[in-house]
Amino acid sequence: MSNPILLAPGPVQLHPEVQRILAQPMIHHRTPEFDCILAHALSGLKFLFQTEQPVFIHTSTGSGGMESALVNTLNPGDHVLAIVSGKFGERWAEIAEVYGAHVHRLPIAWGDAVSPEVVKNYLKENPQTKLVLTQACETSTATVHDIKALGEIVAQTNALLLVDGITAVGAFPIPMDEWKIDGLIAGSQKGIMLPTGLSFVSFSKKAWAVVETAKTPRYYFDLRKELKANKNGETLFSSAVSLIKALDFVLKELQTKDLKQHFKEIKRRADFTRTIGQLMGLSLYSKSPSDSVTAFQLPASITTENGVQLRTHFEKKYHVTIMGGQDQAKGKILRLGHMGYITDHDMIETMSRLASALHDFGCTIDSEKIKHESIQWLKANSL
Amino acid sequence: MSNPILLAPGPVQLHPEVQRILAQPMIHHRTPEFDCILAHALSGLKFLFQTEQPVFIHTSTGSGGMESALVNTLNPGDHVLAIVSGKFGERWAEIAEVYGAHVHRLPIAWGDAVSPEVVKNYLKENPQTKLVLTQACETSTATVHDIKALGEIVAQTNALLLVDGITAVGAFPIPMDEWKIDGLIAGSQKGIMLPTGLSFVSFSKKAWAVVETAKTPRYYFDLRKELKANKNGETLFSSAVSLIKALDFVLKELQTKDLKQHFKEIKRRADFTRTIGQLMGLSLYSKSPSDSVTAFQLPASITTENGVQLRTHFEKKYHVTIMGGQDQAKGKILRLGHMGYITDHDMIETMSRLASALHDFGCTIDSEKIKHESIQWLKANSL
Repeated sequence: MSNPILLAPGPVQLHPEVQRILAQPMIHHRTPEFDCILAHALSGLKFLFQTEQPVFIHTSTGSGGMESALVNTLNPGDHVLAIVSGKFGERWAEIAEVYGAHVHRLPIAWGDAVSPEVVKNYLKENPQTKLVLTQACETSTATVHDIKALGEIVAQTNALLLVDGITAVGAFPIPMDEWKIDGLIAGSQKGIMLPTGLSFVSFSKKAWAVVETAKTPRYYFDLRKELKANKNGETLFSSAVSLIKALDFVLKELQTKDLKQHFKEIKRRADFTRTIGQLMGLSLYSKSPSDSVTAFQLPASITTENGVQLRTHFEKKYHVTIMGGQDQAKGKILRLGHMGYITDHDMIETMSRLASALHDFGCTIDSEKIKHESIQWLKANSL
Repeated sequence: MSNPILLAPGPVQLHPEVQRILAQPMIHHRTPEFDCILAHALSGLKFLFQTEQPVFIHTSTGSGGMESALVNTLNPGDHVLAIVSGKFGERWAEIAEVYGAHVHRLPIAWGDAVSPEVVKNYLKENPQTKLVLTQACETSTATVHDIKALGEIVAQTNALLLVDGITAVGAFPIPMDEWKIDGLIAGSQKGIMLPTGLSFVSFSKKAWAVVETAKTPRYYFDLRKELKANKNGETLFSSAVSLIKALDFVLKELQTKDLKQHFKEIKRRADFTRTIGQLMGLSLYSKSPSDSVTAFQLPASITTENGVQLRTHFEKKYHVTIMGGQDQAKGKILRLGHMGYITDHDMIETMSRLASALHDFGCTIDSEKIKHESIQWLKANSL
């Protein structure tokens, strides 16, 4: 059997050292050893988020982090603008509605990025807007929004810009303070290259003024209490020791390597994937493609039904797990992640095996040629 | 250096196979391999909870599980009885208050169990009570409550009995259906012997009728949606793959071994600890001691300040991590956990090293004698 490869947009392949750390004997979260690890990790998260503000760790998935950002800033009845450019934009809107917000959805065609001008005009006409909700990268369409431009616009208003950075933080630049982001959320199993289990949230000063008085009831995700606990060197509830130990390792690695270099490596994978994909007749689905994940439109010759089967076939016969499309994109696209511990060998194998899988579905593609081109491209574009 | 030992009431020492599983390469949560693991784990949880009802997995700490049980059953303004017999009883009360309940606290002296009669009379006089909140084992005092009796009493009323079983489920019998428990919560890092990161919640049929109509807003912990997702073979949000894989292993082990045998092993550790502790002049703090954790009162000769130092000294010099007291019990007690992967060697070493530590603090104890007695007791009481 050929070696299994996981190139989904999260969860991602783990660094061998992360695997080693996860296998270590348990230590208690109230020990000098863990106190030291937690302090390092909390400081490393500020480096990763590029912020002077505290970054918090929740034991939850990324969606828990999104809920946290909302319940800490929302008053029931608040007017909220939700940029809905895919499945996760809709999630923002849903959570805000559950907590009593008046949600105005700004629908964006799947694969498109939001126009900052449209947001600017909306906020001018609707100055009562309290929150603007967006993804940095909409994972379901592999599309990046112009967060820098949105940050500039929202900073001119009383609203807060909450950014789901779950498929962004750790994958491409999203400097929280510089880009005037008021709330930034990350998840452990994407750009931070850990198993699923942690989310991360940080607020700007402007947001903190709102957090202090926000009336939505919260306990598990109460960041006012978490802040107090962190100041005492603890997490508010039992720490997810194993994951935080591994987090500390990843953050140290990123600090040693520097984010610039790390982002270059991920961008190289995205560029490689796009180039070789296009050689196979796959076109980009997104008009604003993300470096964290690439979505390919399947050839017109492949029906929607076959599109779903192709992904399963690829996994079953070729042992590569990538993701298909969700909701309206189901059976129409393939999504390949560029985050995590990925070797050049993984990338070459993924593309040549994908060529074979497409060949099995009637596409005229030479897998050996794709392998050759892949090797050549990576050689020519080594870092 | 002597080998480090972790005998806290959670997190606990891990089974070597759990450590091995946590170190495995990542797999995606939308794969046939994981589908199968999740299905097994969800069914194994019903075995563990001894219930016909579905048991749910949250990616959260145990406190998240407590919040889940409350937000899924509470209407703002509901009258709630909280049995407060320690730190975690107070947590129940706090969460309920945050979500708008009228909370009546039933204060129990630390170390005491609640009198079921008192609860019975309270409910007779206060028939408007919607929820009764209790711990099965109050971790801060190492005390068990009579959940079976409480279940009988609450079943006669319209109220629901929500039981924090975080330091109970997997450690001693707490059959959910038989004991008429309406909501049972467990955490991964205690009797379930995994790292911190998962909580588990299950509701009785009586509770489900309330869940369907409860008005507290919830999204991350919405068990109506989680139920739907589980029926489709998925978790509502990204699955914590690594932990759920390890959970599946633990549950299989427990099913193979049978709960009776497993509980016997834990009870043997509790009996051992109490017997040897008393030989060292340590008396039991709790009047209703739990099999999951034992709290010892420190000798009168040790001041509160020295009591705090003793625990740190034990960890630093003898490499054994146990817990001290919290809040009003700070510096006055030591708490030793009996859950997790614990060998007889660990127990002998813990007690003989504890004897040495007490000796360092002026107690007249012969560590060699304690070691000898420990070995003898374990031999005489082998399973």
